[in-house]
Amino acid sequence: MNIAIVGVGLIGGSVAITLKEKKAVSKIIGVDKSDTNLKKALQLGLIDEETTLEEAINRSDVIFLTIPVDAILQLLPSILDRITHQVVVDMGSTKEGILQAVANHPNRGRLVAAHPMAGTEYSGPEAAIPELFKGKMMVYVDVMHSDEDAFDTVDAITEQLEMRTAFMEAHEHDVHTAYVSHISHITSFALALTVLEKEKSQGRIFELAGSGFESTVRLAKSSPDMWTPIFKQNRDNVLEVLQEHIKQLQNIQQALSEEDYEAFHKLIKKSNKIRRILK
Amino acid sequence: MNIAIVGVGLIGGSVAITLKEKKAVSKIIGVDKSDTNLKKALQLGLIDEETTLEEAINRSDVIFLTIPVDAILQLLPSILDRITHQVVVDMGSTKEGILQAVANHPNRGRLVAAHPMAGTEYSGPEAAIPELFKGKMMVYVDVMHSDEDAFDTVDAITEQLEMRTAFMEAHEHDVHTAYVSHISHITSFALALTVLEKEKSQGRIFELAGSGFESTVRLAKSSPDMWTPIFKQNRDNVLEVLQEHIKQLQNIQQALSEEDYEAFHKLIKKSNKIRRILK
Repeated sequence: MNIAIVGVGLIGGSVAITLKEKKAVSKIIGVDKSDTNLKKALQLGLIDEETTLEEAINRSDVIFLTIPVDAILQLLPSILDRITHQVVVDMGSTKEGILQAVANHPNRGRLVAAHPMAGTEYSGPEAAIPELFKGKMMVYVDVMHSDEDAFDTVDAITEQLEMRTAFMEAHEHDVHTAYVSHISHITSFALALTVLEKEKSQGRIFELAGSGFESTVRLAKSSPDMWTPIFKQNRDNVLEVLQEHIKQLQNIQQALSEEDYEAFHKLIKKSNKIRRILK
Repeated sequence: MNIAIVGVGLIGGSVAITLKEKKAVSKIIGVDKSDTNLKKALQLGLIDEETTLEEAINRSDVIFLTIPVDAILQLLPSILDRITHQVVVDMGSTKEGILQAVANHPNRGRLVAAHPMAGTEYSGPEAAIPELFKGKMMVYVDVMHSDEDAFDTVDAITEQLEMRTAFMEAHEHDVHTAYVSHISHITSFALALTVLEKEKSQGRIFELAGSGFESTVRLAKSSPDMWTPIFKQNRDNVLEVLQEHIKQLQNIQQALSEEDYEAFHKLIKKSNKIRRILK
């Protein structure tokens, strides 16, 4: 089986390197709008060869789309136009808009929408690592609209990536990711901006930055080119969560402002319930 | 040299276990208002024996205060009353209020105010780990008011803990920690509350929780008993930072709400500058 990785960055590169190490595929063909990325991906041994999108479609059995979600939205219809037997895997972080755009496409059945809940704050082919996906969740979205053989092909690859699986409907997926992924990024962006604002006047501040700070702010290193389209796609859900998040911060602010430390203690204690969810 | 650890939790226990492994002290005496904690600390071998605060003061050369900052504020004057030659180390996370409270104490010189910028979201003696402090920053505060020999004694221990050191004035310290530690906790608390609010109606949400979410929310597991007093002590600085943080979130909210993705992209890109600070 030949596979094409369209977008040889963190996700695409990690799919490639993991499948390569497992010898799960015969050939990995890389496609990227950046020549620099393609050269690096070849150098790092993530891909076996590079070519154009058109050529890659013709020569592959499975085509992974691991590019920003606006690029998926733009390219997906024409990719579905060109395929015959191939399977296309949309690995984007938002689903509703993308799946609506191809809902009536005659080749819709060849598309499997899957969102690997894995990543780091780094991007590009150098960020690719084996085992990025190990033990993480692959969320399949609206699989009832995928052909059975197309799904089975992708699921066999998911197994090679050693992932767990879940199934969701597109809208449900986008709401959930707004809560457990997208809002975390916004929080980190805002925290970084807050601290950077202060740093202008207080250079020494970062001598103190400990591991707590690092952990809450690390997502602020994430790529704007990748994330802006995600927020654009998932705008309505994210705005809803963001409003709730600001409300919670204002509750904390009010307790502190009014020196109501009993209320403050209760809020922290309530937030501790997150222990039920995180190991 | 005998040392007393007043408060055998995460920080006190980690000081104890590290010094014990290095054989840097002769005896470690534990004091805690919780008998359960004392028993666990003995069981875990963090301390050699347990006793009362009074007895511990009499039998120790160095007394570490690793209890919540409200308890430090309350106990410190009477501890300074009782000491003769001993050194007292205040390891609290806020400094201005505590140091003001003992500014004119005749034994002020025996006190060394030091804040180890290290910790985890866990608490209690079971949370104590060796190497918690390794490579982290020990911030000495207002050392010009400490006797030279008292400072040298503490600094030798800091070296055993393999920490780097910085020196700050009390107000500067409290402002800086509001930015790089306290606000991170508030962000995590609010994020946990946001998501828990949603979870009431959507149980499946956490199937999706990936490592990004975990990292931004993990501080929400922190102890309310330890943190409420810190926020009480550092209220004014934290309120200032919190206001700025909410403003930054509202800027992001506005860009998204107005579908101004150019502004949104710019905000993320600006937040990326945090890379300069975090490795």
